[in-house]
Amino acid sequence: MEPQQSECKVIPGTKIADKFLKELVRDIKATNAKVKLVSFLANNDFAAEQYANVTKNSCAKSGIIFELRKVDREQLEDSIIAANEDDSIHGILVYYPVFGGGHDQYLQNCVSPLKDVEGLCHLYRFNMYRNIRHIHGRKDLKSLIPCTPLAAVKVLEGCDVYDTSLPIGEQLKGKTITVVNRSEVVGRPLAALLANDGAKVYSVDINDILIFDRGPNLELTKYAVRDCNKKLEEILPISDVVITGVPSPNYRLPIDLLKDGVIAINFACAKNIDDEVTKKAKIFVPAIGKVTTAMLQRNLLRLYNYRDLNYKLVNGA
Amino acid sequence: MEPQQSECKVIPGTKIADKFLKELVRDIKATNAKVKLVSFLANNDFAAEQYANVTKNSCAKSGIIFELRKVDREQLEDSIIAANEDDSIHGILVYYPVFGGGHDQYLQNCVSPLKDVEGLCHLYRFNMYRNIRHIHGRKDLKSLIPCTPLAAVKVLEGCDVYDTSLPIGEQLKGKTITVVNRSEVVGRPLAALLANDGAKVYSVDINDILIFDRGPNLELTKYAVRDCNKKLEEILPISDVVITGVPSPNYRLPIDLLKDGVIAINFACAKNIDDEVTKKAKIFVPAIGKVTTAMLQRNLLRLYNYRDLNYKLVNGA
Repeated sequence: MEPQQSECKVIPGTKIADKFLKELVRDIKATNAKVKLVSFLANNDFAAEQYANVTKNSCAKSGIIFELRKVDREQLEDSIIAANEDDSIHGILVYYPVFGGGHDQYLQNCVSPLKDVEGLCHLYRFNMYRNIRHIHGRKDLKSLIPCTPLAAVKVLEGCDVYDTSLPIGEQLKGKTITVVNRSEVVGRPLAALLANDGAKVYSVDINDILIFDRGPNLELTKYAVRDCNKKLEEILPISDVVITGVPSPNYRLPIDLLKDGVIAINFACAKNIDDEVTKKAKIFVPAIGKVTTAMLQRNLLRLYNYRDLNYKLVNGA
Repeated sequence: MEPQQSECKVIPGTKIADKFLKELVRDIKATNAKVKLVSFLANNDFAAEQYANVTKNSCAKSGIIFELRKVDREQLEDSIIAANEDDSIHGILVYYPVFGGGHDQYLQNCVSPLKDVEGLCHLYRFNMYRNIRHIHGRKDLKSLIPCTPLAAVKVLEGCDVYDTSLPIGEQLKGKTITVVNRSEVVGRPLAALLANDGAKVYSVDINDILIFDRGPNLELTKYAVRDCNKKLEEILPISDVVITGVPSPNYRLPIDLLKDGVIAINFACAKNIDDEVTKKAKIFVPAIGKVTTAMLQRNLLRLYNYRDLNYKLVNGA
């Protein structure tokens, strides 16, 4: 007789998001803040428009003023800069892709760091990769973390993967985590973030597998990357946590290779992990989109609280 | 009998570069400056290594100390940051592509603006696109322009396309220029730069043709973009200047469509314009690589002169 796997807890993203959304409602009510988020839709992407509606509804529940502005893509840069300069706006969100590639990354850097709720401008990316937790060394200015990798971190915290009795930067010590996807927007930042928190991360993409970690005794101040001579068939059975983020409906995580008692998290829009993972996993989080939306609002509230610091944070000019 | 086309002047890039290189030699000698450029090679690209040799030789002639550092690509970010902090280094050059895509653009933003001889960090790109000629409004700090589009501008100046009797920002007024290529690194910045100087620019890429200009009376403060309902066959015969930058050995500019007396400039590494263009053109510049190398050194000397300003120009942290 096979050993009985104890029951898998399936945690919907909404459940983890709810805790943060309740805090947001409380904090926004308490401060009587009129927090305003402006989002720009400059493509004809139906999915983006749907996502805008989700954000709108979620913001309404939190007491956040949400405004969707549809603009021609050639007007987007000027519109972003006008919003940077408009004191009634506290956060700016852009639905990408607009032009795609380097032009979009240029636009991400046109958003003022003081309004960049997505955390995609260079300042926040740089601080995240380099394990710098505050802006320009100021203890009163915590650096922002891009929403999607931040949501994955919060999900791991919600699953008690973080050991909060350890110092910050070591709370994932001893944990082996596989992240399937190494895109510049989510997979690579997430691997770096988890390694900066002490994990050994296998970062998998279509070409190769890399190891992100801070050395055996956390002796590095930030993650380093090295080649991995193992194959997916070797790393999945030794991973405590597996996180998937492949933006394709055709990709499926090979469940038979997973360790018994694994924590399985999908942060892709596509369903990368079949439900049968519950036969192996201790915890399964099938989608984290709602947590991402909550983190967006959390970043927004933080930036709202930075608004009167009149701190010069510029990317250009 | 066909009208006789007066003879075409073929101007090699070296001839235009020489003027600037002589000025550099003079200025570097005069200040007794020990100007040092460090370049990073983190790929196994033979062409990049060859280009490094060209830069090295050119720097040697100008009296610039040139050091090539070969690093593992995973060490590149840390190496760039160490060079940012090393006062003996005045300029940093990276041979791209390294990782490609967004990761490379992230690395471009890791180079301190005070050492970014290529002018590829967000600060300089932003200022160039937005027609902002000084850094943070300081008249003593001229903003840098990325080397390749800057080289194209200097070639146009060398061909007397700029009317220097007009105010800055209007010196290309009345000129129609076609730029074939709209990449984020060269074609798009060049189109914007020329439009910011007053030209009407047709920006051609594989998908469409766009118009970059500042309106009929230069009433805009910076270029704007709009769709063009004309085809290549219609814009080439009305273009005073045609600039090609297609990075493919297969592309050839259709010479029969050019206006008699056109100025034809190729800034691609590939030979986009056949020599028979001399039958139509007034001026033909077959390659501008040497001018780009000269502009790199010119940017370097400018940054060298900024070094003691101790001006805070950061992209992150």
